[in-house]
Amino acid sequence: MKGHKVTMLGTGLIGLFYTRTLHGQRNRDRVHVVYSRSQERADAFARENDVPNTSTDLEGAIAHPETDTVVIGLPNDLHLEAVELCARHRKAVLCTKPLARNAAEAKQILDIAEGAGIFTGYLEDLVYTPKTLKAVQAVQAGQIGTVTWARSRETHPGPHSAWFWDATQAGGGAVIDLGCHCIEIIRSYMGKGNRPVEAMAWMDTLVHPIEAEDNAIALIKFESGAIGQFEVSWTFRGGMDLRDEVAGTEGTIWTNHFLRTGFEIFSSGDGGGYVAEKAETSSGWLFPVGDEVSELGYVDMFSDMFDALESGRAPRETFYDGYVVNAVMDAAYRSAKTRAWEPVELFEWRGGATNRIAKTMESHDGQIVIKRELLPDGRSKLILKDPASGDFTDRIVAG
Amino acid sequence: MKGHKVTMLGTGLIGLFYTRTLHGQRNRDRVHVVYSRSQERADAFARENDVPNTSTDLEGAIAHPETDTVVIGLPNDLHLEAVELCARHRKAVLCTKPLARNAAEAKQILDIAEGAGIFTGYLEDLVYTPKTLKAVQAVQAGQIGTVTWARSRETHPGPHSAWFWDATQAGGGAVIDLGCHCIEIIRSYMGKGNRPVEAMAWMDTLVHPIEAEDNAIALIKFESGAIGQFEVSWTFRGGMDLRDEVAGTEGTIWTNHFLRTGFEIFSSGDGGGYVAEKAETSSGWLFPVGDEVSELGYVDMFSDMFDALESGRAPRETFYDGYVVNAVMDAAYRSAKTRAWEPVELFEWRGGATNRIAKTMESHDGQIVIKRELLPDGRSKLILKDPASGDFTDRIVAG
Amino acid sequence: MKGHKVTMLGTGLIGLFYTRTLHGQRNRDRVHVVYSRSQERADAFARENDVPNTSTDLEGAIAHPETDTVVIGLPNDLHLEAVELCARHRKAVLCTKPLARNAAEAKQILDIAEGAGIFTGYLEDLVYTPKTLKAVQAVQAGQIGTVTWARSRETHPGPHSAWFWDATQAGGGAVIDLGCHCIEIIRSYMGKGNRPVEAMAWMDTLVHPIEAEDNAIALIKFESGAIGQFEVSWTFRGGMDLRDEVAGTEGTIWTNHFLRTGFEIFSSGDGGGYVAEKAETSSGWLFPVGDEVSELGYVDMFSDMFDALESGRAPRETFYDGYVVNAVMDAAYRSAKTRAWEPVELFEWRGGATNRIAKTMESHDGQIVIKRELLPDGRSKLILKDPASGDFTDRIVAG
Amino acid sequence: MKGHKVTMLGTGLIGLFYTRTLHGQRNRDRVHVVYSRSQERADAFARENDVPNTSTDLEGAIAHPETDTVVIGLPNDLHLEAVELCARHRKAVLCTKPLARNAAEAKQILDIAEGAGIFTGYLEDLVYTPKTLKAVQAVQAGQIGTVTWARSRETHPGPHSAWFWDATQAGGGAVIDLGCHCIEIIRSYMGKGNRPVEAMAWMDTLVHPIEAEDNAIALIKFESGAIGQFEVSWTFRGGMDLRDEVAGTEGTIWTNHFLRTGFEIFSSGDGGGYVAEKAETSSGWLFPVGDEVSELGYVDMFSDMFDALESGRAPRETFYDGYVVNAVMDAAYRSAKTRAWEPVELFEWRGGATNRIAKTMESHDGQIVIKRELLPDGRSKLILKDPASGDFTDRIVAG
Repeated sequence: MKGHKVTMLGTGLIGLFYTRTLHGQRNRDRVHVVYSRSQERADAFARENDVPNTSTDLEGAIAHPETDTVVIGLPNDLHLEAVELCARHRKAVLCTKPLARNAAEAKQILDIAEGAGIFTGYLEDLVYTPKTLKAVQAVQAGQIGTVTWARSRETHPGPHSAWFWDATQAGGGAVIDLGCHCIEIIRSYMGKGNRPVEAMAWMDTLVHPIEAEDNAIALIKFESGAIGQFEVSWTFRGGMDLRDEVAGTEGTIWTNHFLRTGFEIFSSGDGGGYVAEKAETSSGWLFPVGDEVSELGYVDMFSDMFDALESGRAPRETFYDGYVVNAVMDAAYRSAKTRAWEPVELFEWRGGATNRIAKTMESHDGQIVIKRELLPDGRSKLILKDPASGDFTDRIVAG
Repeated sequence: MKGHKVTMLGTGLIGLFYTRTLHGQRNRDRVHVVYSRSQERADAFARENDVPNTSTDLEGAIAHPETDTVVIGLPNDLHLEAVELCARHRKAVLCTKPLARNAAEAKQILDIAEGAGIFTGYLEDLVYTPKTLKAVQAVQAGQIGTVTWARSRETHPGPHSAWFWDATQAGGGAVIDLGCHCIEIIRSYMGKGNRPVEAMAWMDTLVHPIEAEDNAIALIKFESGAIGQFEVSWTFRGGMDLRDEVAGTEGTIWTNHFLRTGFEIFSSGDGGGYVAEKAETSSGWLFPVGDEVSELGYVDMFSDMFDALESGRAPRETFYDGYVVNAVMDAAYRSAKTRAWEPVELFEWRGGATNRIAKTMESHDGQIVIKRELLPDGRSKLILKDPASGDFTDRIVAG
Repeated sequence: MKGHKVTMLGTGLIGLFYTRTLHGQRNRDRVHVVYSRSQERADAFARENDVPNTSTDLEGAIAHPETDTVVIGLPNDLHLEAVELCARHRKAVLCTKPLARNAAEAKQILDIAEGAGIFTGYLEDLVYTPKTLKAVQAVQAGQIGTVTWARSRETHPGPHSAWFWDATQAGGGAVIDLGCHCIEIIRSYMGKGNRPVEAMAWMDTLVHPIEAEDNAIALIKFESGAIGQFEVSWTFRGGMDLRDEVAGTEGTIWTNHFLRTGFEIFSSGDGGGYVAEKAETSSGWLFPVGDEVSELGYVDMFSDMFDALESGRAPRETFYDGYVVNAVMDAAYRSAKTRAWEPVELFEWRGGATNRIAKTMESHDGQIVIKRELLPDGRSKLILKDPASGDFTDRIVAG
Repeated sequence: MKGHKVTMLGTGLIGLFYTRTLHGQRNRDRVHVVYSRSQERADAFARENDVPNTSTDLEGAIAHPETDTVVIGLPNDLHLEAVELCARHRKAVLCTKPLARNAAEAKQILDIAEGAGIFTGYLEDLVYTPKTLKAVQAVQAGQIGTVTWARSRETHPGPHSAWFWDATQAGGGAVIDLGCHCIEIIRSYMGKGNRPVEAMAWMDTLVHPIEAEDNAIALIKFESGAIGQFEVSWTFRGGMDLRDEVAGTEGTIWTNHFLRTGFEIFSSGDGGGYVAEKAETSSGWLFPVGDEVSELGYVDMFSDMFDALESGRAPRETFYDGYVVNAVMDAAYRSAKTRAWEPVELFEWRGGATNRIAKTMESHDGQIVIKRELLPDGRSKLILKDPASGDFTDRIVAG
């Protein structure tokens, strides 16, 4: 069982999570080189995570002869340069979310990578949470019928590093930081072939003294008529709230990834200690998760990436998906300014066509059945519409 | 302890719930006259609910000499006429939700009632659920700081009576039927004095073969900058989903009124039987509520109404509130057509003024503190913004 | 709608809860006289709860000419005397839980009340929570088949008044205080006619410097073979934990009465304020209930008591039930000493006989079917036992 | 990153789960040989799980020259023989739970393995669930103070293979099958050095036509005075219920491993499909888990086993632990017969000594403080015990 040797770019929280995942359990892939702008941080990271090589030279780290894959865990404004170097050195490249600060930059990245023909993966971890993977499978099996609505909510009290708060480096605020997750979760439920057509968004800076939005809500209309909805916030209090909901014609799915996962602790505060990412307290009722890197999708994400790389197939999340996410966010940002729906502009759509959600059409005695309810006595109550007059009536029928 | 004698207009599901509430526990108010268009239904209702008098004459029922209060549980298009008759006979009148089919009709109702000087109450039950009452109290006490966002979700597989499905009688679809609840719940969290300024809505008829919308999402912007959000659906599968969420600068509140209330049954299907309003099955995992009329707010609602009537104060929910709800729904319907934000148009605003949500402004060494995180070693990590350059930096400080 | 005028004995927490219930909503019964050993406490109580009369004379309060019903909310060692006075003055009497400190004392109380022929009710509120009432109904309807096991858990950080901690006044510790609730909840699920036969208990004083037990676990075996289990504690941290579970041959029921009822607040601590009985904090994640007196069963309990009194029937919980509870607790206390199962000794059993839980007996090809599992391909896997050899085998069959 | 090559003994459900875990994600250890009594089952298993070698010869499979580790996934009565062969061929051996059918047999296994000096691991997966690992860490850090009570519940509708139901092959019923998990979970919370002293158990065969117990409850008393409690059942309806609870002097922990993990699906039944191990339905409300082999502890268990093997340390769960579990179960079985507490008999105790839980001893004005409650006005209410008279009183004090 041979594994991969990886160059990790970045020593922030995301680089740490990625590395812990790769070095966790009995995994066979390892971080072999870590790059940071600061030698001190690179050294500390290497020491704490048992990484044999460090570098403060971006190109050198990428070109390192013993690694075959580069993982980008850098601020958003540095993704393009890093991908260019990967293309030059023909390394497989896995880039953290969002792919870029906007669709134009994402297109550049996509073009470079596709031009070079290198393997690319978009590290959208929340699409890979074990719950989401199984839920998407249930949707694809038809267990909830045709999807009509999906909600993705990602809120917490704000990111841990300074650059996130700087709209220039980041490309935006809570939408760029968190909305990118939500969009891909929603697309996964809608079906990747279901084109996002339009977006409408509200954004505001309510609490923090910054330029970027700290709260936003967006709606995304899909070709099938289904609607996606996301809520992101950097002002949420209570921890990190990651919840998704999907409704379909035959069912519904609710997932809670962080704050209510069947693990509850009450503590008077004795013992202290780390509870969970972005938890606000260490006393009172606490809601940790079992294994963060597994629950947040990192384990399944890297499994898919390396398995795809080895078998020559595309991973679940590609740079093209990252590009689509940026295009949806661009539409949302435009809508927040124009205060109206804005089209999602894509240079090309690779997903095919999706039919409109079909209306149920049952008839009874020449009338359209609007609803059928089972009564306690075993009979059914029908709500009927007369196709000629348009009148609605109730009728009780046997069976 | 003397109680009130009530004329109940309507024998549908809502009339039944109201009557069961009034006749429940050791309550001292009673339905004394029940009106239906059909004598047969009136008789059946009177028999099953122990009501001494029936009538198929609307004015006669309202004018009945032994009742002092009229409860309107009729289809939406009949509210105006009923209120006119109550005004004529100077009866206290409590009207089910929504007050009217649109704001113009609601204004007519309001004018008639205020002109006659009769006591009026708007029967918006979900504002009175015990959880909502206590949650609003917590908000008013400042336990979650300043409210930034409120979400109200009300979805189920569609209403039980034919007239709901007919846009002419009802005035609309899922928004008119369910959105009216959500708007008042949101207003209760925002503060009744916080003016709803604008609305944006998506609506569609996705599943049912009807003209009215069977799914809708709306955003409501308030004077404070806070945002309300509601989701309504007649195509939800899984029962009746009533959930509200509120976020504030110091906390958050989640309430679940129906499907997850700490009461869970698994049944192989033996025994059958009624589980809960709008439940879809009687086998597998079932989620009943303890006492529906209490949990859904009916008990507290009528207590407030009759206590208000006796003490000469306004109840928590007045006809003016009902009018505001209609005005917000009108804006939402307009927005669904114009595909842009629409102003909430009110003939007058009785709620006063509300300040914009205040931004937190802490400074450290001449820098603006964006975020403060407690580290495991007891020190704090500050994210700082330089007021001159606008640059963001991290800094670790003691304490 | 005429109501009852009540003499309330006791101004502690339980007297307060009872009075708030009677004076809550649009209830038609009222506390007319309140008795306390201290005039100061009686006056304060009367003022805060709008009670017209006070007394420090127990017999005078009971004999008050304008009241027809006496509610006993006194320490356990005073129940007998109070019931004697009610019998003498022929008042209906409702007594708080436990009925007495032990079965002998409970028998005295029962004999006095039955001898006088007065109406009696045993105020076991937790049997009357709306969830429990509906759950018992589901059990009686057969929705979970035959009950095999019931668990009742009542734990909190310890009672609020000094006398509870004094084994002489109280008759015991956590078992007497909390176990009495659990026993009646368990009996309600088992069927009141299902005789409790034996008890086994572990008790210990683990944390508090007292003589009485602060933790206990007991098992109760019923005539049907079903097993009851309760856990009580005065050392639980995290609030008041009231949960019941029932398992049957066709299903299961889980109820949570206090800490997880679909109402969740996160608060940084701003605003402070009362959250819920026995809550430990006012910051972090908090779990209030909507309407405590309703959720804890007080409303339905008094409705049943007064309805029973008016209609001449027995209430759901009688003094005989209280006596059985004491007899079960006596057996548990004996078992904690003998470290073995102890019989539940009853001077008479009024509940009839109950059959042993029936074993399922399906056969296939002359073999006994132990288990039938549906396979994904539509076939069934049978686990079979050969009646002759006693050997077990797997077999896959169609359908 | 070199991995291990494993001989897997057994192709039942447990062998499948083990193999899926080893072959899952980017794991570096692989099953290299699979043994079954039936060549057909071995071949099918090898094909479906990509295992290169099969065998129907137990010793041959164990002695296979290319494998270094043997995993025993056989019926309980075959563990001893398999361990003997592993000892003879000096292979590292990992044995599924329970280690043996009783303590005497477990002692034989232990002696053989220790005599041969081979590496041994006891495959008690539920101690390794990510939630349990983190919860045990929280306990060890003191976050809930001193543990006073732990409950472990494992119930489902009965095992999938015939041999489980045969008391001769299995060594017992639900206690042997499920209680072994519970005991080790409880010991993990109590501290492995906290000696289990006595056990008391109720067992019965309520529903299935078998000799072995299908329901049991047991109490286990530990040297510290703390009490463990487990409930096992083969007659539970609703899926597989795996819940643990721990109470301590400073807090509490609740974990739910299967039925309520923040993943909820409602399905009308369309799409069908596999939901979760031991789920009873594929319609209505369903509660899958994200990644079964991770959530159930298999991933962390094998990581610990192989990491321990490589680093020469003992794994978290050893054959000695398995022996202790059998000894506790033996005591429980004896207690079910004698109907009294029975000592846990151990040939030697390797865990050291544990102090009795300390009573809190705070004093105020020469009185013992029994309880301290914070009042809404900021003052405290003390419940005091006079050390001389033993009398209890309430007192309100500042602060």
